[in-house]
Amino acid sequence: MKYYIGVDIGGMSIKAGVVDECGNIIAKETCHTEPDRSYQEIVKSIYELCLKVLDKAGLAKDDISGVGIGSPGTVNSEKGVINYSGNLHFKKVNIIKEFKKHWAIRAFIGNDANCAALGETLFGSGKGKNNTILITLGTGIGTGFIIDGKILQGKNGEGAEGGHICIKIGGEKCTCGEKGCWEAYASATGLIRQTKLAIEKHPDSLLKQIADSQGRVSGRTVFLAYNEGDKAAAAVVKNYVKYVATGLLTLVNIFRPEIIMMGGGISNEGDYFVAMVEKYVKKHAFGGKLNTVPPIVRASLGNDAGIVGAAALAIC
Amino acid sequence: MKYYIGVDIGGMSIKAGVVDECGNIIAKETCHTEPDRSYQEIVKSIYELCLKVLDKAGLAKDDISGVGIGSPGTVNSEKGVINYSGNLHFKKVNIIKEFKKHWAIRAFIGNDANCAALGETLFGSGKGKNNTILITLGTGIGTGFIIDGKILQGKNGEGAEGGHICIKIGGEKCTCGEKGCWEAYASATGLIRQTKLAIEKHPDSLLKQIADSQGRVSGRTVFLAYNEGDKAAAAVVKNYVKYVATGLLTLVNIFRPEIIMMGGGISNEGDYFVAMVEKYVKKHAFGGKLNTVPPIVRASLGNDAGIVGAAALAIC
Repeated sequence: MKYYIGVDIGGMSIKAGVVDECGNIIAKETCHTEPDRSYQEIVKSIYELCLKVLDKAGLAKDDISGVGIGSPGTVNSEKGVINYSGNLHFKKVNIIKEFKKHWAIRAFIGNDANCAALGETLFGSGKGKNNTILITLGTGIGTGFIIDGKILQGKNGEGAEGGHICIKIGGEKCTCGEKGCWEAYASATGLIRQTKLAIEKHPDSLLKQIADSQGRVSGRTVFLAYNEGDKAAAAVVKNYVKYVATGLLTLVNIFRPEIIMMGGGISNEGDYFVAMVEKYVKKHAFGGKLNTVPPIVRASLGNDAGIVGAAALAIC
Repeated sequence: MKYYIGVDIGGMSIKAGVVDECGNIIAKETCHTEPDRSYQEIVKSIYELCLKVLDKAGLAKDDISGVGIGSPGTVNSEKGVINYSGNLHFKKVNIIKEFKKHWAIRAFIGNDANCAALGETLFGSGKGKNNTILITLGTGIGTGFIIDGKILQGKNGEGAEGGHICIKIGGEKCTCGEKGCWEAYASATGLIRQTKLAIEKHPDSLLKQIADSQGRVSGRTVFLAYNEGDKAAAAVVKNYVKYVATGLLTLVNIFRPEIIMMGGGISNEGDYFVAMVEKYVKKHAFGGKLNTVPPIVRASLGNDAGIVGAAALAIC
């Protein structure tokens, strides 16, 4: 059995795991990112975390066949460079070169959403498939595209920004500065905005009661009311399903993948939500019944997708 | 020098050309499609056309290294099957198997828009690039995506339907039955509709005069008035540029290709139109100035793209 290390750099914490060639995590360790530090210091922490997790797994450096690092932001995998990352204050830093100063091993870096897509494809709900899409419905929308088993990165790693496809020209303002992005409608942030509007409009609804009892509106609020049969909530959910599906339809019509995997907080709502989205996509995909529409399923690696996906860079 | 034959099946005519390995057409021949015939008869015509064009080129069957066929519709290249094609009344027919009954040679089939993208990438304005997009603005919008030098086909050849990405949820009705497709706004058909609306709204405009003098509204009408300084036409063109660019932005944010090539009747309007679209895309692409935005150029193979692109299937 071969072993790898996957490192998942987040804005708050860095996670590292020893992963076997079948995608199983043998041991995990975490440290604080302290993102205001220099990239040299952060890479040193990554190296030290690797040693720590090796120790926990009862393995030595020589037992490891490769290291993969997943990072937020725009990552040029070919060059080993993080071009920029809002969370990490990195700008054109060669992480791989720096890492190899500590440990001369096969090492790779990739964008975290792309890594997650690769991990889910090799070891998660996309197992056995070569052409997949992972979408993550969280604060924003993350997307990763696997084509013929390889990550679609675009020039300098600047592609795969599927959250910023336009679904409504001149529509809602997005955090990216543009209007009408899929993310502005179909992220948890978009759903919370839609929920708040419905609460204002329907002050007598169960939706309003639930929001009041929670003290705030979250991505879950509307689903709680929906599952109790609230009409105002049902209207919000119906529209939200349409928003999620509309972006997916663009991706289906372009890529016609074998499977679409859905992760992120919203997908935790459950299979019934994913099924509603799938039904809409099946009904509206180009070519109708003459074409094959990919199944839409929940991503299965959960919080481990970052570590396993990063390791997958080295396993591939 | 190696020689190939490229065959371009259209609803009206079939074109065949002998193409050298550098993408030059040595000789061309054409016959009627007569699309109501059986696929066996049409394939026989294709074979006879190959013999005719070989003769014209002064070459023999043994001089040919491969044959590529481009067809409208959904084409499963791996299986050599046209799944369906509205123009040709084909449904799940194995064209390659049938063709090889006449001529046992390396033979390939692909969707015509995908072939054109491959041809433009190998021998046209995308020469030297590995990651390109071709869009064709005609009656509809055709798209072809080349990733790492290979055609993106999607499962069963059902992908690459970029004309049917949604740019306005709940928007204009598209020929595909859905609402808000890019094609409904940014095809020549969309432009003609927008031009007619402007003429109704501005009966005193030069735009109206030009349309009247032409006797009909075409994709060119608004540009003729625009170039004469007509304000109503300028508003239509400005909006149309936005529509074209909005779909392109979705493609740029996903693929971040090295170059975008634009073909079809509208692109013949000239470099100034392409430059307007490029300017809009540059301004609104995700990541702004931190990212690289692909140049947008006119496709260069023109009417030969079909033949050269089909041959490219065999050259690759």
